[in-house]
Amino acid sequence: MFQKVTCGCAAGVAAAFRAPVGGVLFALEEVTSWWRSHLMWRVFFTSAVVAVVVRSAMNWCNSGKCGHFGAGGFIIWDISGGQEDYSYQELLPVAIIGVIGGLLGALFNQLTLYITKWRRTYLHKKGKRVQIFEACLISLITSTVSFVLPLLRKCSPCPELETSSGIQCPHPPGTDGNFVNFYCSKDNEYNDLATIFFNSQDDAIRNLFSAKTFHEYSAQSLITFLVMFYSLAIVTFGTAVPAGQFVPGIMIGSTYGRLVGMSVVKFYKKLNVDEGTYALLGAASFLGGSMRMTVSLCVIMVEITNNLQLLPLIMLVLLISKAVGDFFNEGLYEEQARLKGIPLLDSRPKQVMRNMNAKDACKNQKVVCLPRVSRVVDIVSVLQSNKHNGFPIVERGQNGESLVIGLILRSHLLVLLQSKVDFQNTPFPCGPGVLNRHNFSDFVKPASSKGKSIDDIHLTDEELGLYLDLAPFLNPSPYIVPEDMSLAKVYNLFRQLGLRHIFVVPRPSRVVGLITRKDLLLEEDGNTATTELQSTSVRSILSTCKLIFSLLRRYAH
Amino acid sequence: MFQKVTCGCAAGVAAAFRAPVGGVLFALEEVTSWWRSHLMWRVFFTSAVVAVVVRSAMNWCNSGKCGHFGAGGFIIWDISGGQEDYSYQELLPVAIIGVIGGLLGALFNQLTLYITKWRRTYLHKKGKRVQIFEACLISLITSTVSFVLPLLRKCSPCPELETSSGIQCPHPPGTDGNFVNFYCSKDNEYNDLATIFFNSQDDAIRNLFSAKTFHEYSAQSLITFLVMFYSLAIVTFGTAVPAGQFVPGIMIGSTYGRLVGMSVVKFYKKLNVDEGTYALLGAASFLGGSMRMTVSLCVIMVEITNNLQLLPLIMLVLLISKAVGDFFNEGLYEEQARLKGIPLLDSRPKQVMRNMNAKDACKNQKVVCLPRVSRVVDIVSVLQSNKHNGFPIVERGQNGESLVIGLILRSHLLVLLQSKVDFQNTPFPCGPGVLNRHNFSDFVKPASSKGKSIDDIHLTDEELGLYLDLAPFLNPSPYIVPEDMSLAKVYNLFRQLGLRHIFVVPRPSRVVGLITRKDLLLEEDGNTATTELQSTSVRSILSTCKLIFSLLRRYAH
Repeated sequence: MFQKVTCGCAAGVAAAFRAPVGGVLFALEEVTSWWRSHLMWRVFFTSAVVAVVVRSAMNWCNSGKCGHFGAGGFIIWDISGGQEDYSYQELLPVAIIGVIGGLLGALFNQLTLYITKWRRTYLHKKGKRVQIFEACLISLITSTVSFVLPLLRKCSPCPELETSSGIQCPHPPGTDGNFVNFYCSKDNEYNDLATIFFNSQDDAIRNLFSAKTFHEYSAQSLITFLVMFYSLAIVTFGTAVPAGQFVPGIMIGSTYGRLVGMSVVKFYKKLNVDEGTYALLGAASFLGGSMRMTVSLCVIMVEITNNLQLLPLIMLVLLISKAVGDFFNEGLYEEQARLKGIPLLDSRPKQVMRNMNAKDACKNQKVVCLPRVSRVVDIVSVLQSNKHNGFPIVERGQNGESLVIGLILRSHLLVLLQSKVDFQNTPFPCGPGVLNRHNFSDFVKPASSKGKSIDDIHLTDEELGLYLDLAPFLNPSPYIVPEDMSLAKVYNLFRQLGLRHIFVVPRPSRVVGLITRKDLLLEEDGNTATTELQSTSVRSILSTCKLIFSLLRRYAH
Repeated sequence: MFQKVTCGCAAGVAAAFRAPVGGVLFALEEVTSWWRSHLMWRVFFTSAVVAVVVRSAMNWCNSGKCGHFGAGGFIIWDISGGQEDYSYQELLPVAIIGVIGGLLGALFNQLTLYITKWRRTYLHKKGKRVQIFEACLISLITSTVSFVLPLLRKCSPCPELETSSGIQCPHPPGTDGNFVNFYCSKDNEYNDLATIFFNSQDDAIRNLFSAKTFHEYSAQSLITFLVMFYSLAIVTFGTAVPAGQFVPGIMIGSTYGRLVGMSVVKFYKKLNVDEGTYALLGAASFLGGSMRMTVSLCVIMVEITNNLQLLPLIMLVLLISKAVGDFFNEGLYEEQARLKGIPLLDSRPKQVMRNMNAKDACKNQKVVCLPRVSRVVDIVSVLQSNKHNGFPIVERGQNGESLVIGLILRSHLLVLLQSKVDFQNTPFPCGPGVLNRHNFSDFVKPASSKGKSIDDIHLTDEELGLYLDLAPFLNPSPYIVPEDMSLAKVYNLFRQLGLRHIFVVPRPSRVVGLITRKDLLLEEDGNTATTELQSTSVRSILSTCKLIFSLLRRYAH
């Protein structure tokens, strides 16, 4: 289940941005709170399949039948041909971009958090009609702003462009490109605000990233666009509109990036600087400041822009923007997940946990245990009296002492109570073969609902008097920790193993054994199997190689 | 310690291949058996610093004073300008390259394993002189082969080259490039074997990867080189020569890749195929087949060759070669680590562990416990009588029952016995303040030695009669598992948390508490702190943004 979600997420990013490796890393960095190396292999496989399928679809669409999709290759915004190299003087403006990205990203996270909270508390309780109305209103505002604001802006005369650059001003109608005419009266004029605003976001980003188009935008237009688009993005986030987070983020970032780029071009006149480069860095910085990813964003930016030369600058910008953002709040996804009540654990335990122990964490609630064979009425009253999700099962041992034999989940108890097939008349343990009465799927929680509640289950008085043997349905060995273990250690256990419940037990009275890493290698049978000369396998490798090479040699000659 | 090793490894790969992101991923995929997200952040930071430093060094060396180092930019083997795109017919030869890579890689791992084993058992026991002699002998053989084999090969006439490609045949003496003359009598002849063999590996790879040089190599030369170089690489691996593993791997792979490429060029005459592309894919496949990495190799290959267009093909080749290789044996590093006796755990528990429980794993050895205050003579005899690395400490509780109070490591006991400052006359627990007598560094095991042994410690009879209170030095809460927990679960605990010891205890008799994820969020203070309107912080973000933008606007205008 969890692996499928991770693979699906990777596939989505890989397909949307045509960034297969970026998709893998996005899934690993953002989605998984715990990570195993064979998961990486599966995610990588998913991504490779996506790459091949996207490529086929693009080939098939190359004739232009598929609308916007067919246009372009595997790289969305190719910015090669711009700035080839960077100099040390540029490190300062790059750092400034990083700081702006961190600040604006943190602000974005904070503001969206308040708006989402307000929306959940007041707006969305009033029913689905309000949501639809809200979405319509926002699209109306967005359309009006995108159309009216460029109209208010004066047209600029076309600059002189080198014919070798292949850029035309204004670009011919019906094509995508820089220098949009947009109701300008003269033929050699363009509207810079319309070039960004009244365009698909895809093309707007391409225009902002584009190289060799100095002074295309005025600072005034860029700031107008930034303020309007930033506000719209905050308001739109969390409505019933699938507006995404990545592309608007790139839009915002590349706008202020280009603004910084214009200052750099003015300031360092001798350097070979391109405004488009700074737009790219700005995009990276805003995403870094808002989502707080590092490696995956880095790879995604490189994959969508095909520019490896600027990798060190992108890394620097991401480091700074993430550090600045982390100073104020958490990443966008973490904040939103927390708001939704998802118990997402940070990568590190809180400082206060170092001075707490396991017992302190469960002080507020009393543990409710169930005997192995319980009366149905007792189970029902336990489920009604509290909201615990798991119950320890206790049995009397042969010497009369009590023994904890496992953990049963509330959801499994509810399934058993509803199916009723396991109810029995006697208070004695049942024989084997009970599990055959159930399918594994009976106990799987449906993904989209909140699950059953005890109030949904109706039992007759006769049924309430029966017994239920819980032994076949429990988890016989949940993880345990001694009561005085540091809570920080318990936290790591939860986080690294992806646990949901843990038993806190008294300090043990004796140690039965001590396992070390060497014990887990199972050397006595493992060592000989792996290192012994598997002469047959080596021979088969060799013969296959020989065959392939002889074929190759025949064709190559 | 562990984090430093990971960061160092990332820095090394990042610097050597000028692949910062590749370095990060290499460290995460290959080095760490367990992984935390803040580790990724640190490794990324290391890599970014490396990128900036390498770049500065390269700028400083640009005049050519630093020998080979100064040459080239951040991308080592730029193969852009070659094949731009690929077609579906090419998927078959690409799959063949993947299979060859898997086979040759697996064979390489197996053969190096035998040779290393043989070397450890017979050769290196005879002293360091033998090692030096061995290294000299191998370099002599390598030099002779590299020089003599090209001499035996006939010279080929230069092909007709387009002047626009910028390739000369033979290339002028004193420069690096394709078509090495190497004692060919005529001016328009070159020696194809010398172009690969009698060259620095760096240049040889550049020549193999080079585009638009069709039919430069004959199949005969490539096969000769492949066989000789493969054999030399196997013999050299594990000697006292820092020959590396990456670059020879790329050499081997690109040779058979180019061989396949030649067949493809012959076979699919209509396609726009370049032999150099196949050399790149071959290199990826051999590294994948031998090291069994996926994402990191993919990124490294892209970073060192600057070719993003071929990413889907590289992914495909890596998938196939890893799958084929995994069929035969484990990755090179895993095999070698196992041979060295490093208890490296696979990512998954062995199948047989599912039917074993924790108690089965520690059946062979008896646990040796120590009382909290022990006589020195008892500790010494315990350390002498077994080779355990950890000892549980047991104390009598107030009611007379025994309680396990923690774990002490053999190495810490040895430090205490050697320093002698904690010895006391009475068998009663000591007061607080004992730890002040020790520095933390006293207990750190030196990285390069095997640590102390009990035989190195000499105590007088008087000292042996004293007592030692172990309580201040023990780990008070090691992880515990119940004796009947599945060994596969215990394995995951070890692997995910990077543990060294675990206590197997009897099934607990009662549960003190039950911790869930929600308990770990510490909601009562955490929630308000993060989601409350931190108006001061928002205001400070806003004012900083305003300041920066007003400055920007002034400069941009």
